[in-house]
Amino acid sequence: MEGVAWKQRSPATCPPIRCIVKLGGAAITNKGELESIDQDSLRSTCAQLRQAMSDPAAKGKVMGMDWSRRFGDPADPVVDAEGFADMPGIGLDSNFIVVHGAGSFGHFQASRSGVHKGGLHSTLVKAGFVATRISVTSLNQEIVRALAREGIPSVGMPPFACGWSTQQRNLASADASQIIQSLHAGFVPVLHGDAVFDELLDCTILSGDVIIRHLAQLLTPKYVVFLTDVHGVYDRPPTDPDAVLLREIEVDDNGGWSVVKPALQDNGKGVEISVASHDTTGGMETKILEAAAIARLGVDVYITKVDTEHSLRALKGAVNTCSDDWLGTVIRSAK
Amino acid sequence: MEGVAWKQRSPATCPPIRCIVKLGGAAITNKGELESIDQDSLRSTCAQLRQAMSDPAAKGKVMGMDWSRRFGDPADPVVDAEGFADMPGIGLDSNFIVVHGAGSFGHFQASRSGVHKGGLHSTLVKAGFVATRISVTSLNQEIVRALAREGIPSVGMPPFACGWSTQQRNLASADASQIIQSLHAGFVPVLHGDAVFDELLDCTILSGDVIIRHLAQLLTPKYVVFLTDVHGVYDRPPTDPDAVLLREIEVDDNGGWSVVKPALQDNGKGVEISVASHDTTGGMETKILEAAAIARLGVDVYITKVDTEHSLRALKGAVNTCSDDWLGTVIRSAK
Repeated sequence: MEGVAWKQRSPATCPPIRCIVKLGGAAITNKGELESIDQDSLRSTCAQLRQAMSDPAAKGKVMGMDWSRRFGDPADPVVDAEGFADMPGIGLDSNFIVVHGAGSFGHFQASRSGVHKGGLHSTLVKAGFVATRISVTSLNQEIVRALAREGIPSVGMPPFACGWSTQQRNLASADASQIIQSLHAGFVPVLHGDAVFDELLDCTILSGDVIIRHLAQLLTPKYVVFLTDVHGVYDRPPTDPDAVLLREIEVDDNGGWSVVKPALQDNGKGVEISVASHDTTGGMETKILEAAAIARLGVDVYITKVDTEHSLRALKGAVNTCSDDWLGTVIRSAK
Repeated sequence: MEGVAWKQRSPATCPPIRCIVKLGGAAITNKGELESIDQDSLRSTCAQLRQAMSDPAAKGKVMGMDWSRRFGDPADPVVDAEGFADMPGIGLDSNFIVVHGAGSFGHFQASRSGVHKGGLHSTLVKAGFVATRISVTSLNQEIVRALAREGIPSVGMPPFACGWSTQQRNLASADASQIIQSLHAGFVPVLHGDAVFDELLDCTILSGDVIIRHLAQLLTPKYVVFLTDVHGVYDRPPTDPDAVLLREIEVDDNGGWSVVKPALQDNGKGVEISVASHDTTGGMETKILEAAAIARLGVDVYITKVDTEHSLRALKGAVNTCSDDWLGTVIRSAK
C-alpha cells in the first residue's frame, strides 16, 4: 500500500470514526432479480442506523433530507424548512461511513462484459464499464436517498469519481481527503463497489470489502459492521442443516485465525467458511480475509443479519459476546 | 487560481480536447415543473452529440451502453454482447466533456435552504446540501444514461465527489486528473453544477459555467458550445419582440467586449444582454462573463438553441459566421 500513502493527507488530521458499515449486496437487494432493491431491508437498515446515531433520550421527529420527487409520484416533496431552521442541530452522532455492495446491481453488467478482467481496448469491456457504473451508481443514489429520508446527512461518493484506482485489483490510489472533510462537516459518506481504472489491467471492479479494509486501516474506526443475509460466518454453507454459526473468531498477528466460540473439534482449520451465497467480487474467502485484516488492526468486526435486533446491536457497538442472545460473528484481534 | 494549479497534474499530459459542451438547465429540463427532464431535448442532444463524434461516412448501428432497467419497465435490458465483441472500436471521436446545469433540479432544494450562502452549522443548510446533491446527481444519472443509450461511453463525475471545492465561490481546488485519465481512456466525463465545500462559507453552489471556464483554461478545447433554450445572446430579453440576436461578439485582452455583428448603433455598450430566463446561478451577466473569459483564451464559444440544426452545427464545430443561415452567437477573441 506504499503507493497510496503519499497521495492522501495525513491521517493525523482525521477525527475518530465511530463505525464503518458494510451493507452487503445480498442484504439490501433481491437476489436473482435484476436491479431490485429489498426496500424493507433498506428502510429498516436506515432506521437502525439512525437509532444507532441517536442519543437514546432523544425522541425528535425525523426530518427527512430527501426533497426530491419519487419516481411515479406526482406529488411534490414536503419540506419543513421552518422546522429545520428551528433545530439547534441534527442531534445525531453521524460519525459513520457507509459502504455498500452491488448485489443484483452491477453484477449482470460486469459479468456480461468481463470488466473485472480489464482491457479497455475491447469495445465490450468499455461498454460494460459504462453500463456497470450506471447500475452501481443507481443503487448508490437510492441508498443515499433512503438514508436522507431517515434524516441522516448522507453524501454519495462513487470511488471512480473520487479518482480511486487499482494496480492488479489492489488499491493504488485512494485519496480519502474529501471523505475526511465530509465527516468533519457532519456528513455520512456513502461509497460502493465500482468500476475503476487499473494501472496494469486498464480497468477492474473495486469491491466494497476492499474499500472497507482501506478505510479501516486509514481511519481506525471503533468497530466495523458487515450486514448480510445470514446470521454470520458458518462452518459450512448456511443452507446446510448442520451448519454451525461461528460466534467468535480470533486473528493473530500473522494473519492466522481460530474459532474461539463455539469450541470446535477441528479448531478453525479446514472449516468451510461461508457468509452468504450471493457474492460477486471474490466470495467468502475474500470477505473473511478482509474482515481478518481489519481485526488485526485492533478493530472489532461484527458480521450479522440485516433487519434484526442483532444488526441494531451491532450498529450501536453494543455486542456482548459473553451472552448467547446475540446472533452473529465477532472477529477480533487475539491481543 | 494559484491554489488550483499545484493540486493537479501538469496540463502538458492532457490530450487535445475537441469540445466542452454545456447543456444548460433550461435546455434539458422543463421550467416551472419540479425535477422534470425535457426528454425530447435530451434525446435529440445525445443523438446530435453522437453525430458530431461520428465519422460522416460511418453508418454503424447504435450500440447502447445503458444496460440497466428503466423505471417502471419490467423488461430486462437487451445487451448485444457478441455485437460489441465483434466491433473493432466504438468508432467515435469521443474527445468531448459534457457539463450540465440544474434547471428544475436542485434549484428548489438550494433556494429553500440557502445552501449557496453557506453556513453548515445551520441544520437547514446541512439538510439542503444533502437534498440539493440528491437532486442534481439524479439529473446527472439520467444524462449519463441518455448518452450511454446513444452509444457514447459516458461516466458521471459529480464535482463534490471529485473533491472540488471553492473559496468564496471561486474554485479553490479542482483536481482534473481523473477527468484527463477518463478522456485518455476514451470516456466522456459528465460533470454538473453541484453543492460543494467552500473554504470561507463552509459550502456553496458551484455552477456549471464556472466548471466550464476552469476546464477550458486547463485543457484548451478547440471550441466550447453552450446549448440553451433560445437562439443565443440578445440585446434585450428574448421575449421582447424587438430583441436582436447578437451574432458575433469579440472579446479583447482586457475583458472588454463589443458586438461585431449585427452592426448596432450603441456598439455593445449598455445593451441588456439576455441568454435565457431560467438561470439559477448568477444569471446572464455571469454567463456572458464566463463565455468571454473562455473566448479570451482563443477558444471560440458558440451559444445556440438546443435541438436545432444550429446546435448540430455548433457541436460539429462547423459554424461559419460569414453566412447568415446559422442562428446563434459566436464569442471569440479579437486577436
